Amino acid sequence: MSVTIALDAMGGDYGPQVIVPAAIKVLSEVDGVKLILTGDQDQLHDLIKKHHGVLGCRLSIQHASQKVEMDEAPSQALRIKKDSSMRVAINLIKTGEANACVSAGNTGALMAIARFVLKTLPGIDRPAIISALPTIRGHCYLLDLGANVDSSAENLYQFALMGSVLANAIDNIPDPSIGLLNIGSEIIKGNERVKQADRILSHSHLNYAGFVEGDDIYEGKVDIVVCDGFVGNVALKSSEGVARLVQHYLQESFQQSIFTRLIGLLVLPVLKNFRQQMDPRRYNGANLVGLNGVVIKSHGRADITAFAHAIHIAIIETRKNVPKHISAYLEPWLVEGQVV
Amino acid sequence: MSVTIALDAMGGDYGPQVIVPAAIKVLSEVDGVKLILTGDQDQLHDLIKKHHGVLGCRLSIQHASQKVEMDEAPSQALRIKKDSSMRVAINLIKTGEANACVSAGNTGALMAIARFVLKTLPGIDRPAIISALPTIRGHCYLLDLGANVDSSAENLYQFALMGSVLANAIDNIPDPSIGLLNIGSEIIKGNERVKQADRILSHSHLNYAGFVEGDDIYEGKVDIVVCDGFVGNVALKSSEGVARLVQHYLQESFQQSIFTRLIGLLVLPVLKNFRQQMDPRRYNGANLVGLNGVVIKSHGRADITAFAHAIHIAIIETRKNVPKHISAYLEPWLVEGQVV
Repeated sequence: MSVTIALDAMGGDYGPQVIVPAAIKVLSEVDGVKLILTGDQDQLHDLIKKHHGVLGCRLSIQHASQKVEMDEAPSQALRIKKDSSMRVAINLIKTGEANACVSAGNTGALMAIARFVLKTLPGIDRPAIISALPTIRGHCYLLDLGANVDSSAENLYQFALMGSVLANAIDNIPDPSIGLLNIGSEIIKGNERVKQADRILSHSHLNYAGFVEGDDIYEGKVDIVVCDGFVGNVALKSSEGVARLVQHYLQESFQQSIFTRLIGLLVLPVLKNFRQQMDPRRYNGANLVGLNGVVIKSHGRADITAFAHAIHIAIIETRKNVPKHISAYLEPWLVEGQVV
Repeated sequence: MSVTIALDAMGGDYGPQVIVPAAIKVLSEVDGVKLILTGDQDQLHDLIKKHHGVLGCRLSIQHASQKVEMDEAPSQALRIKKDSSMRVAINLIKTGEANACVSAGNTGALMAIARFVLKTLPGIDRPAIISALPTIRGHCYLLDLGANVDSSAENLYQFALMGSVLANAIDNIPDPSIGLLNIGSEIIKGNERVKQADRILSHSHLNYAGFVEGDDIYEGKVDIVVCDGFVGNVALKSSEGVARLVQHYLQESFQQSIFTRLIGLLVLPVLKNFRQQMDPRRYNGANLVGLNGVVIKSHGRADITAFAHAIHIAIIETRKNVPKHISAYLEPWLVEGQVV
């Protein structure tokens, strides 16, 4: 099956400087994939030439005259930037010219535009952001990462369902296990919404494993961890902060004396392996899940390797047809007039 | 000033096996401190003897016939365990026989009993749990860590106020800076309670620095980070999870071959320094702040070094009279009939 991915070439902190070479890299790695770059035609032309890319049916440009700024209000981007590289990329899914799109741009704007243009799947109230995170046993998926705040118990159930379908599609896990993020049994057992979501999940057909705590995410106890977007975003960002702190400590430890610096040199190949495992680029590419289409959000500061990874995620999800699977899962319950 | 600290000697995963030697260690380190161990008299007697401790006015025992279990419901501990080592330790503050207490026991029960026996300070609705966390620049305080869920904007303001007084007392920071934990400006800007707390803090006399995100905690951008207890607990636990994951990766990297194992041996003294910086024992001792008294919660799995650190925190806070400072700060506003 040939897939076509639209790339918002002007999005992210580095824009086409990163996205054009990433596109050329991906085309050299996989067959049966077409990429459409959306953005300033002249600039993209020059960059493709510079990176020895070949324009043709595998790599094409769709001109867009505007660009959504990283700090622009989503509502404004939606209203005013109708010819932005982001909007044009999403439109290509709507018209059927592309199967998916990848953007490193403004997350709020991407969510707002994707929701407006593509609509959510029947039975899904709100799309969510989901991403893979490393664990001691491999990786797990965490959602929502910030698309929704004050999620209701029903929203949390829908997140669980979408996560389950996604993990099944991407990792071929037959019946992915789901944990609901909560705080220690020691203290107050969660808030009302979490307790209610626990009841819904316990009676669902999903492989629900009960409550998990923040540290369980990285233990790999479950395949999917479900939480409200405010909580998930804080968990993700705190984790990034700790990882940076640890690297800072490690660097400091090797710079205490000439002796430790020499050891540091010797240890470089070992630490290279360590850094590779810690490399957030290996996990670049979050999903805006719950939409009528595959929309992948790359980190704004993604480099060529990281952005290429996000494109690969889009290819896999398109080939596995994730939105269709979510719909298929929801259908029997929709007939009965309710999701749960 | 001589201070007396009550130690819940039966609490925590290791109970008196850890707490008795920790107490003896602290007495050998500081002057002007008296410690009262609460718990099973015979067992404590034997352990003090075993560890060459001297019973007398500096180290005494207050018998308690019960023990709060780690998984016991707080309400049950409060109702039924009236002669538990935890309750007896807190009672000693109430009667004025002790200035503070330290417990490694069940957090929920400690909070419930402390709140019932000691009451909250005038103007404080709910006590909070606060702890120091390492940052690139030193450390910062995070609260609430799980005592409260669904905190209101007023609660968040009170947390900020208590954090400010505590950081000032412990670290001698004249006017500690406060950040309100939120999610990226990129996406939806927080929930309603956070937005409202932002407005209250902006008009307060506190040194409010605005919103911070999860990764800013470890950057050391502010002295105090304020959030709801559910969010704070998840942030803390996720951080612990990542730190463990990183150590796992590091260990794995050094065990790939005989060569990397040899390098690992060479690198041991350097990594020792690294491990010391990462050592959570350096930060053991969270505060139950907002009560009429100093109550310190040690980690349940604390070892001797870690529990001793928690005792030292109790000594410092007693000497600095943190509860009185919080009251003094609140008083002018209480007269006007409102806190804010």
